[in-house]
Order: sequence, then structure tokens, then C-alpha cells
Amino acid sequence: MAKKKLNIGMVGAGFMGRTHSNAFRQVGAFFDVGYEPVLKAIATRHAEGAASFAGNWGFESAESDWRKLIERKDIDLIDIASPNDTHAEIAIAAAQAGKMVMCEKPLGRTAAEAGKMVRAVEAANVPNMVWYNYRRVPAVTLAKQLIDEGRLGRIFHYRTKFLQDWTISADVPQGGTATWRLDAEVAGSGVTGDLLAHCIDTALWLNGGIDSVTAVTDTFIKQRPHAVSGKVQEVKIDDASAFLARFHNGSLATFEATRYARGHKALYTLEINGENASIAWDLHDLHRLSYFDHGDEGRLRGWRSIHITDGDHPYMDRWWVPGLQIGYEHTFIHQAADFLDGLSSGKPAAPTFREGLATDFVTDAVLASAKSGRWESVGQ
Amino acid sequence: MAKKKLNIGMVGAGFMGRTHSNAFRQVGAFFDVGYEPVLKAIATRHAEGAASFAGNWGFESAESDWRKLIERKDIDLIDIASPNDTHAEIAIAAAQAGKMVMCEKPLGRTAAEAGKMVRAVEAANVPNMVWYNYRRVPAVTLAKQLIDEGRLGRIFHYRTKFLQDWTISADVPQGGTATWRLDAEVAGSGVTGDLLAHCIDTALWLNGGIDSVTAVTDTFIKQRPHAVSGKVQEVKIDDASAFLARFHNGSLATFEATRYARGHKALYTLEINGENASIAWDLHDLHRLSYFDHGDEGRLRGWRSIHITDGDHPYMDRWWVPGLQIGYEHTFIHQAADFLDGLSSGKPAAPTFREGLATDFVTDAVLASAKSGRWESVGQ
Amino acid sequence: MAKKKLNIGMVGAGFMGRTHSNAFRQVGAFFDVGYEPVLKAIATRHAEGAASFAGNWGFESAESDWRKLIERKDIDLIDIASPNDTHAEIAIAAAQAGKMVMCEKPLGRTAAEAGKMVRAVEAANVPNMVWYNYRRVPAVTLAKQLIDEGRLGRIFHYRTKFLQDWTISADVPQGGTATWRLDAEVAGSGVTGDLLAHCIDTALWLNGGIDSVTAVTDTFIKQRPHAVSGKVQEVKIDDASAFLARFHNGSLATFEATRYARGHKALYTLEINGENASIAWDLHDLHRLSYFDHGDEGRLRGWRSIHITDGDHPYMDRWWVPGLQIGYEHTFIHQAADFLDGLSSGKPAAPTFREGLATDFVTDAVLASAKSGRWESVGQ
Amino acid sequence: MAKKKLNIGMVGAGFMGRTHSNAFRQVGAFFDVGYEPVLKAIATRHAEGAASFAGNWGFESAESDWRKLIERKDIDLIDIASPNDTHAEIAIAAAQAGKMVMCEKPLGRTAAEAGKMVRAVEAANVPNMVWYNYRRVPAVTLAKQLIDEGRLGRIFHYRTKFLQDWTISADVPQGGTATWRLDAEVAGSGVTGDLLAHCIDTALWLNGGIDSVTAVTDTFIKQRPHAVSGKVQEVKIDDASAFLARFHNGSLATFEATRYARGHKALYTLEINGENASIAWDLHDLHRLSYFDHGDEGRLRGWRSIHITDGDHPYMDRWWVPGLQIGYEHTFIHQAADFLDGLSSGKPAAPTFREGLATDFVTDAVLASAKSGRWESVGQ
Repeated sequence: MAKKKLNIGMVGAGFMGRTHSNAFRQVGAFFDVGYEPVLKAIATRHAEGAASFAGNWGFESAESDWRKLIERKDIDLIDIASPNDTHAEIAIAAAQAGKMVMCEKPLGRTAAEAGKMVRAVEAANVPNMVWYNYRRVPAVTLAKQLIDEGRLGRIFHYRTKFLQDWTISADVPQGGTATWRLDAEVAGSGVTGDLLAHCIDTALWLNGGIDSVTAVTDTFIKQRPHAVSGKVQEVKIDDASAFLARFHNGSLATFEATRYARGHKALYTLEINGENASIAWDLHDLHRLSYFDHGDEGRLRGWRSIHITDGDHPYMDRWWVPGLQIGYEHTFIHQAADFLDGLSSGKPAAPTFREGLATDFVTDAVLASAKSGRWESVGQ
Repeated sequence: MAKKKLNIGMVGAGFMGRTHSNAFRQVGAFFDVGYEPVLKAIATRHAEGAASFAGNWGFESAESDWRKLIERKDIDLIDIASPNDTHAEIAIAAAQAGKMVMCEKPLGRTAAEAGKMVRAVEAANVPNMVWYNYRRVPAVTLAKQLIDEGRLGRIFHYRTKFLQDWTISADVPQGGTATWRLDAEVAGSGVTGDLLAHCIDTALWLNGGIDSVTAVTDTFIKQRPHAVSGKVQEVKIDDASAFLARFHNGSLATFEATRYARGHKALYTLEINGENASIAWDLHDLHRLSYFDHGDEGRLRGWRSIHITDGDHPYMDRWWVPGLQIGYEHTFIHQAADFLDGLSSGKPAAPTFREGLATDFVTDAVLASAKSGRWESVGQ
Repeated sequence: MAKKKLNIGMVGAGFMGRTHSNAFRQVGAFFDVGYEPVLKAIATRHAEGAASFAGNWGFESAESDWRKLIERKDIDLIDIASPNDTHAEIAIAAAQAGKMVMCEKPLGRTAAEAGKMVRAVEAANVPNMVWYNYRRVPAVTLAKQLIDEGRLGRIFHYRTKFLQDWTISADVPQGGTATWRLDAEVAGSGVTGDLLAHCIDTALWLNGGIDSVTAVTDTFIKQRPHAVSGKVQEVKIDDASAFLARFHNGSLATFEATRYARGHKALYTLEINGENASIAWDLHDLHRLSYFDHGDEGRLRGWRSIHITDGDHPYMDRWWVPGLQIGYEHTFIHQAADFLDGLSSGKPAAPTFREGLATDFVTDAVLASAKSGRWESVGQ
Repeated sequence: MAKKKLNIGMVGAGFMGRTHSNAFRQVGAFFDVGYEPVLKAIATRHAEGAASFAGNWGFESAESDWRKLIERKDIDLIDIASPNDTHAEIAIAAAQAGKMVMCEKPLGRTAAEAGKMVRAVEAANVPNMVWYNYRRVPAVTLAKQLIDEGRLGRIFHYRTKFLQDWTISADVPQGGTATWRLDAEVAGSGVTGDLLAHCIDTALWLNGGIDSVTAVTDTFIKQRPHAVSGKVQEVKIDDASAFLARFHNGSLATFEATRYARGHKALYTLEINGENASIAWDLHDLHRLSYFDHGDEGRLRGWRSIHITDGDHPYMDRWWVPGLQIGYEHTFIHQAADFLDGLSSGKPAAPTFREGLATDFVTDAVLASAKSGRWESVGQ
């Protein structure tokens, strides 16, 4: 069964450029997919960086303008791994050129922006996907299976947070290549669109839609030097963002994200409490799922720490042997595999752009509530 | 140094009657206090229960009406361990009779009620204390010391929750002796006054005052049989309560309490993130404190799990040897010891009624916000 | 139901004197036992210490010679909480005087010594018990229940250790009142009789008899000052002791104890691996039991961390409410309750002296093997 | 800087063939090495398997006889990933042909066999390495750094085990392709050479040489069907193996390995107790290092759980960002990187064959002691 080649043009050679490139390199050796991804071309603004990145990852060519990728006939898919402010323009152009489109999260800086992207890919009828990679942590995928099987029963609570500590120092600059996430113009928002967006995407997937939210945000360090100019400027992003939410299914939720939680590097956690069972997970030990089953015999009930490394755990039959853990990058490989499977089966891998838009509606409501001081309904 | 006798009249023979009685029995054997508590009399509505309780715990006499205790000349201190709706009347009468007063938390069902209690003890100038026992978990006391020493630096976040799961079944009744906590008339509120009150008291102690809150509450099971009549009636308490808060010191906080978190019996947790260090603790392993010190050498930074059993940990020089843990009931013994020390030194043990009132102001604001859907300022 | 008084004469006012006294003080308030322990008299060599200890714990009288206790008609039971070298003489004299005898572990310094004690209590036909308190940690008692129910199936492995770090400094003296455990003459051996004895007693109870052992011991710090004379002398105890064992049931085992494991205060751990299930426990979190059940559904198998605080856990219906942990001292209260129950029922509480002797046979074999360098059979 | 090509011929297409192939594929994208590994040819006995494996991993060609690889001029390095009984013959032939040689652990089935391999590579003066991959877990490498810096001080204890549970069922066959590890002829021994060998290699690296051991082994299931013939035959491997050891540096150690520890998939753990600090690690959470520093302020001492994902942790600057963990396979990538660096620098990466031989001397002594029942000295 010879595989069809899928020629990829990637935009962005930063952190996400690396994770996506690695996913395309690795997927074929571990997953039995019908397509062979070919790293055809990388585009990044810096010509030097592009060449070096291409050499390192095995891209056949490098461009300094993403528009070139879209013009090229030998490219089937545009994968967007560049900063948030570039997502819409690239995605829309790619769709209009008939390319498949993958986009790093968040889809847009706002729901309005993301909505245009959705309309573009749907109008062009091209396969599309947003890289909300944490759905493909095997432990999280297993959580989804358990919920879908009805094991938790009625859901009462959803509790999630994403804690980092890398911007506590006032010396961390804003803007530029490495710290564009602190530039509101580029990023759209601070932790709301960066970290909370992950929490929200997973929550919508696991627990259904959110009706309304009440939120608070704050900016702890008010001024920072710009990474390029060195000029001290007002910080416009939110450093921390928290909200309470009501889900369609009647459950209550707490969400929180910050880059000021000393001691936590990337502590994304979630917990779901159902009538019959509860589930908890955290990114710092992503290979474990905590599970409490009220159906267990009374005196022997306890939270189980499930080491998600067995062949009957999602995706894990493709890796090593029981007991041997995988890491962060594998979530991207899994998502690439699912995307390729979706091409073969005609059943698109989630989240599509439309599904990714749902998260933008929630982050919009969060930011609106943080301003209004009131509960805000989530748009659709 | 012969100890002065301190004659105690206790009201209430339930769960809290037991913890208080045990505290008075044990304090003298472990702490070098200037007073010897004498369990003079217990009062509870049920004459049989009173006699049995008195026999078990060594009370010299039993009464079926708390007013008798207040009339008795041989009683120095009234300790209130009865349901919330009795606190104010007993405390005020006791103060007016010139007795010292200890009161189980929350002080009143509302700040208005609690305010009267404060005024009564202050008018009578009698020693008084609220049993917010978790301040005396050695790990929590150590946290307070570290904060007071300035080790955490500027505080960014406070995060706390109190999770239980004992009311998930619709068969649990409301009202009556064992389940009065589900009766809004008696309890004042649901988890807000019961569980969140603990979270709030500790937070005010560790992190200072709260300016404003936005809250949500819910009642998941709308009707329950009454414990006595068996009649199915509307449930008026809050089953779950969560709020976001802004503290005076500029930090943001999340608070949550529920009795619908499957898998958690009494999981009271708190975490404080400061510029230089962070602290975390939970009641399910109350003998440990988690501590992260950013001042540690970079590659060796990690959360320390401190086993709070050494002689240089608060209160622990009075117990066993390093490595041997104490449990829940010891927090009451510590608080009794501090109260007795306060009598000797003239420096009242915290929290006094006035300090306990601060928590009622917050729970009032939480319940108001849950109704109004707006941020509410905390009264004073 | 008036309780019969049980008059206790205790020997030893050190650490174990405190835990035993507390057990007798507390047992009646929490357990429904048929006897009321009366702290009649304490004996310790130092007259001052005896008076102070008596005052603190509520002993009615104090003696400076244990022989006085045995002579007294008003004493029913002699409880031995003094150093190891006094156990045999006191126990034998007490038995011969017709007193019940309780003895702190290890029973004797050698099996020969312990054997005489067994013969004495059996000849006198007096109730007797050794204070191997860790059997009464509720988590450990639950482990015993699970094993007895056959839930583990065939046992393959037993793994246990007791790690401390308090003697690492060469400044710690040997001998004297506080550090008699470093004096081989008094203690009999080092960690073998002190810490390993606990591991062995629990193992024999949970896993049956040991056939043979191969052991190693070492003394890391060869000379120490004497606590009283200050004279630097050779250290004759074993600082560390480890052995491999074969049990009657065919399982293999590793045992280890040391006072040189930096970072561990009293880390007593045990783990049992059976065909169908495994169990693990440690003293630093004594209120938890780890349990792995291979019968759980494959993808949801994981180690359960059972919070042993529910009413259906051993002994826990006598304490607080679910989620609230007990501590170290409670193990002695449980053992006292079981002893008193045994008096009522005529079914002696374990371990009796005869059962305690079994541990001495194992420690004898361990020390013999450490000398001989060969596997040694365990005597009977 | 154009990289030199390094043409690899690999023998074996099983589990280890996969980990090695992946290492060679990935090393260049993450590490700045002077050589580019080229997957030139794979040899495995089954022609079909060879072709499929070659296709999957990108080998340019496939052979059904490893001798072909050695004959080929276009191959620089023979990497042995086939069962233990083939190691010596292949390695010796490869060395004699002037090829570099890498060999999966254990080096030989016995020290005698391994010794011949050492002599062959040393006589041919070809680069060589044994794949003891766990040295390259970043947490383990950090442990080595801390020890080399003298942070632990005098070492008292080394404690290690490797626990699995995959052979508990009597239905697991022996021999054949998938279960050759249960065939003593092929594997040399059971868990001693398979699992304990890992424990020993790491221990020798971290803690220096072992003088003598006393051991026990057992075979719990005495007969198993053969994977190919189905004939039930005696099991000749050891199912479990444990030993006590004395190291050159005076420390005492316990080692244990088994495939009968229900609940553990690949729980390789190690702990080192030094005078000033202790270290612990386990493979089920390989991205964490536990560290206790007695130099910390007394009341704040605790075991630190260090999340080994920062840029200043070994190897981690090559991967993602702080907080994002790597997995099992990365250890092979790290070892490949170090090997390639060793080619460039002329300073061979450890462990060389000679260093790997040291582990065979220990396993020989363990097996000898299990037979003799005596302490056995470790050969050199």
C-alpha cells in the first residue's frame, strides 16, 4: 500500500514550527496512515532562519514570504505556526487558493477574526484543523472516552487551570520574536488566548458548551521594555485571567490561567466531578490519569493513578511497551495521525476551524466580563 | 506552679462537642499551660444524650438547657458547639452573664448576627474566640510564619477550595440532628458558611483583607426529605459556591466549596503564589507542607514536601518524635492551648469574635453576589 | 454498664511511657471497652522525673523502683516501657506475682531472653501483650483483612524498610537516658532490634513465617562519646541492617533498616505483591493505603490511594468524620482497646509474648547471618 | 559545517531495533552533532520482517543475514539490537572487520562472553558502546553531576529495584521471537541479565564498584509452553533476583528485580543516601528527580520534586520549553548524540564495552551467590 504524498508548506519557524515539523517527520514511522507528509517548504520572515530551519528539519526549500507557499502548485497543505496576528490572513489566503489549512491555536485573536477563517475554509471546502494538541494526550483522550461512555454520570463540577511563572521578572521584555506573547497587538490577549484557550478547548470537548461566565483579569507588571527597541512601554496583555462558568449541562466551573504562579512551569490541570466518578489530570505528569470510581467497594475506594502506557490506552499501542512513558511532542504526532486518517476516511479530525472558533467565543466573553464586571453570555 | 482551674460549660454534644471536649482533656498533658480546664457541665437538648456524653467525656454534670449553664456560678466559660442558629443567643447571654465565650464557626449565620455577638463580648469585656481550627494545623501555622517573614515577596495569587462528596445522593435528608447543615434556617447557608468559611478565615489570616468578590452558587438536588418528618421539601441551602476575589494586597483569588466533588471527603486545599516562593497545603495530608523557593539553585528547584513532624515546626515539640504525624483533632488541642496561654498573657488568642466576624462579611458578600450577578464589596 | 477498673503500674517515663499513658487515658472516650484503665502508679529510676511524669499524665502515685509496683496489691497490670535490658527481669517478676504484663517491643534482646519471658507469663497464665503498635494502623489492619480474604492470591514478594537519619552526625552520643538505643548492652542490637523488629513483626503477621535469611549489617560511625561520661568509645550496635528472606509461603523478601538514610525521619514502608493484587503502605502517610487490583478493567487499572478515614475502615468509626486523619499515637489507643476487649472476651489480643518471640528468632538469625556470611535458618 | 555521513547497519528488528532506529532518525534534528547517521541496512532473520521494518524506518536496504552487513563496504557501524545469544558473535565479527560496534545490553550472557567482545573491539581499536540507555535520562544524568560535585558527601546507602508484572500468568510462553527473554539459552538468565543489569550499570556509574554480593533467585512458574512448539518445558530463567551488596566506597546496597510485582510495569527505581543529601528517581516518572538537601534550613527541609524540563537540566536545552516533559525514547537519542560527539572529540562515550563488562561481572557474581548461598566477590 504505497502512501500518497502530502506536500506541506509551513509558516513559522519558532517553538510551534518545531513541534509541527517533528510531528510530520515522525507520524509515518509509528502510525499506519495513508499519507506520507513531505516537508516541502518552510516560510519565515528571516531568510537565514528559514534556511537553517529547513536544513535541520529536512524541508526541501525555504521561503521568506508565506505568500510564496500559497502560490506554489507543489504544496497541498499550509500549516500555520506563526504568531496569532498572522493566522487569519494566511489561512484565508490558503483556503482561497484551495490548500488544506492547519492552524496553531488560538484560531483568531477574536471570534470575529476566527469567524472569517471558518467561513473561508468552509467556502473553499478544504480540510482544516486547529492544533489544540492537548486533546491528544492519551490520558485526556481516555478521559473523553470515559465521559462518552457515561461512566461519570451527571456532571457537577469542572475545574481547570494553567499555571506558569516565566514572566514574573520585570526584566522580561514584550514584543519581538521570542516574546511576542506579551504584545497584545500580536497575541490578541495575554494568558486568556494563550493558556486559557487550551483549558477552554479541552473543556468544551469533554464537558460541552459554556453558557455564561464572570471573569477577572489583571496585569501585575504594568510596564516592560520592548524586545527590539528597548523602550519601556505599557503592558497591554492580561497577566492573569480567571473565570467562573456555567455549562449547558448544569455543571459549575472554575478556570484560571496565569504566568505568575511561582513554581509552576506549565501546570495545566483539569478535574471533572461526576455523580459516579471523577477524573483528574495534569500536564506535569501527562502520562498519568487520576480516576475515582464510586462504584468500587466502599472501603477500597481511592483515586487510581493510572500509568497511561498500556496497549489498550489511546494511541499507546503505537509506542513502546507498558511502563514506558511518552512526552509532550507526541500529542502533535497523534494529532497529525488523526488528521491524515481524516483525509483517508473523509471524516475530518477535530477540532476543525469551526470547532476551534467555539473557544474564541468563550475567550471573547471572558475578556468582556473582565471589563464589564458582569456575567456575559457566550456567543455562538 | 499549681494550675488555675477553668470551669467549662459546653453546649452541644455532636461532632464539635467531641472535638472540643477532647481538646480540653488533652491540652494539659501536652502543653505547659497555666490553666487546667475542668469539664464542669454539658448541655444538650436531649437529656439522655447529655448524660451519656457527660459519662463518656468526663463532664461532672449534664443539663438539658444551656440557660442553666449560664446561670451557674461555678462555670467560667461557655463553649458553644451547637448548630449555627443557636450561636448568637447563647453567646450574647453568656457574655452578659460575664462568662468567657468560645464559639464554633461560623460565628453567626450572617454578619449582622455575628456583629451582635462581637458587641456583646466586647461590651462585657470577656475573653472570646472562634474555633477556626485550621489555623492551628502546624503546616498552616508554618505557612503564616513564612509569609510574615516576607519569604514569599509580593503575592500574586491565592487559590483555595474545600471539596466534599457526602450529599450527592438524593436520599440524604435535610434538617434534624445529624443533617442540620442542609437546613438553611439552622445553618444560615450551605457550603458557603460551612466550608468556604474555613477557606476564608485562613485566607484573611494569611493574605489580608478581601475587597470584592463575584460569586456563583447552585443547589444541585432541589428537594430532599426532612430528617424528622420525612416530608419532601425544597432545599434552600447552596450545594456549591465559588467566587473570584481581589485582595487588598493586589492578589487575585479563586475560592470554591462543594459537597458534590466525588472522591473528596474533606479536601481543603490552599496555595499561595508569591514573587519569591509559593506554598501549598491540603487537609487530606495535613502533616505536610509544600514549599517552592525560587531562591534555590536553578537546576535544583522543586516543590519540597516538608513532613511537618520536627521539633522546630509549630506545636510539634509537644508531640512525638520526627517522622510521626499527628491528626485532625490536634488542631483543636493547639487552639485550646493558645486560648489558655492568652488568658495567662492577656494577649487574646486569635481569632477573636471580632476577627471571626470578618469571615461573615465575606460570606455575606459571596451570597449577595451570587444573587446579584455582580461584583460585591466586602463589608467591614 | 459500669466498667471494671484495671489498675496499671507503668515502668518507664520516656517516649514510650508517654505513648502508653496517652493510650490508657484516651481509650475509654473513644472505644466501648469493658474496663476502665486507672493510671495507678509510674515507676522510673529518677524520683523527680517520676513525680513530674505522674503529675502530667494523672498517675496517682510514683515510685523510683519498679519492684515496688510488683509488690503493690492495688496493681493489676505491669506495663513495661523502659529500655530493652530491663524487659525480661520486670516481666518475669510481674508474671510471677500474678500481674498481667504488657511489654514494649522488642520482647527480649535475644530470643533466649524473650523465651524466658514467654515461659514466665505462660506458667503464670496471665494476660500478656507486646506493643507492636504498627499492626493497629488502620491501613495496616485493612491490609491484613484483604490478605486474609484471599484478595492478593499467591504472594510473590514482600518488601519492607525502616529508614531514619538521626544518627548521621558523629556528635550524637551513645548510652544514657536519651540515647540508650545506641548502647548495645542496653538495646541488645542497633537498628535490627529497634527498627527491623517492627518490619518483621508486621511481616510475620501479614505474610506468615520466615524460613531463612541472609543478612548484612554495618556500623558507619565506629566511635562515639558516651552520653554520661563523655568518653569516646567503640560503637557496638549495628547502624544499618538488611536481609533477604524466604517465607514459608514461597515468597521472597527484602528487609532493610538504617539510621543513615538522609531525608527520612521514620519511613517505615511495606509492599506485598500477590498474583491478583498488591498493597503498599508507609508510615510517613500512615492514613493512606495503596492498593492495586488486577481485577479492575484493564485500561483503568492503577494504584489506588485509599484515604483511610471512612467509617468502614478498621477502627475509624470511633474517630471523626470521613476525610479527617488520625496520627501516630492512635495506634497505641487501638492496641489498648484490643487488649481490653481481649480481657472481656477471653480471646487474647495479639501479639502475645509468644507471638512477639517469633520476631526475636528472626532478629537472632539476622545477626547470626551478618556474622557468618551464610544463610541462617530461623529458630522456633 | 557539512556533516560526515555515518552508515549504519543494524541487526535486529524488535523492540530495541525500533528504539535505536528512532534514535538515529531523530538525533540530528535536536542535537548539533558532527555526523549524520544514515540507516543503510537492517538485518533480521525474517526476510519479510526486514523489508517491512526497512520501509517503516527508512533503511535503504534489508538483509536476512547479519553477516552480509559486515561484508558490506558501505557500512561503518554495526548496531546490535538482536537477542543476547547473538551479541558476541556479531560484535566480534564486526570488530574484526573494522566496523564500529554498538551493542544492546547486556553485553554478553556471561562475563566470559563479554570479555571476548571487549578484547575484540580493543584489538581492532574501533569505537564501541553498550546501550545502557538509562544513564541518559536527564534526571539520572543530573544525579551523576550532583554526586560528582560532592554534594551528597559520604555515601551510606544505595537502594534500587526494577519491578515488572508481565509474566505472572502461566500462559505466557517461553522462547520464540516475542518471548525469548524467558529462554535461558537465548537470554543467558532471567531478570538478572535483563532488569538487574540496568540497575547495576547505573549503580556502578553513580556509586563506583561493587566488592561482593549475596543473592537469592527464584523461578515462580516452573513450566511454560514453548512459543513455537507449544510443548510445555521447564523454565530455566530466574523470575526474580535480589541481592545485598557492599560497594568499594563502604556503602551498603539492596538490589531487586522481578517480573512478578503486580501493579508495576517498568518500575525501575534508585535511591542514594549520602551524609549531606539524598537522591531518588523512578522510571515511571522519569522526568522528575527527588532531592533532599540537609543543608536547607531545618524547618523547611523536604524532598524536592524537581521537574527535569528546564534548559539547565542535562540534555533539556535541546527539547521544548520548561514544564514539557520528554519520554522513554529520548534516552536513546541522547546516547546516540553522545556517541557521535565522542567520534568527533575522540573521547569515547560511556559505557564502552569495557565499562559494560563490569555489569556482567556483577551479574555473574549474583548468579553464583544464588547457587552457593554465600557472599561472592565480584570479578574484574
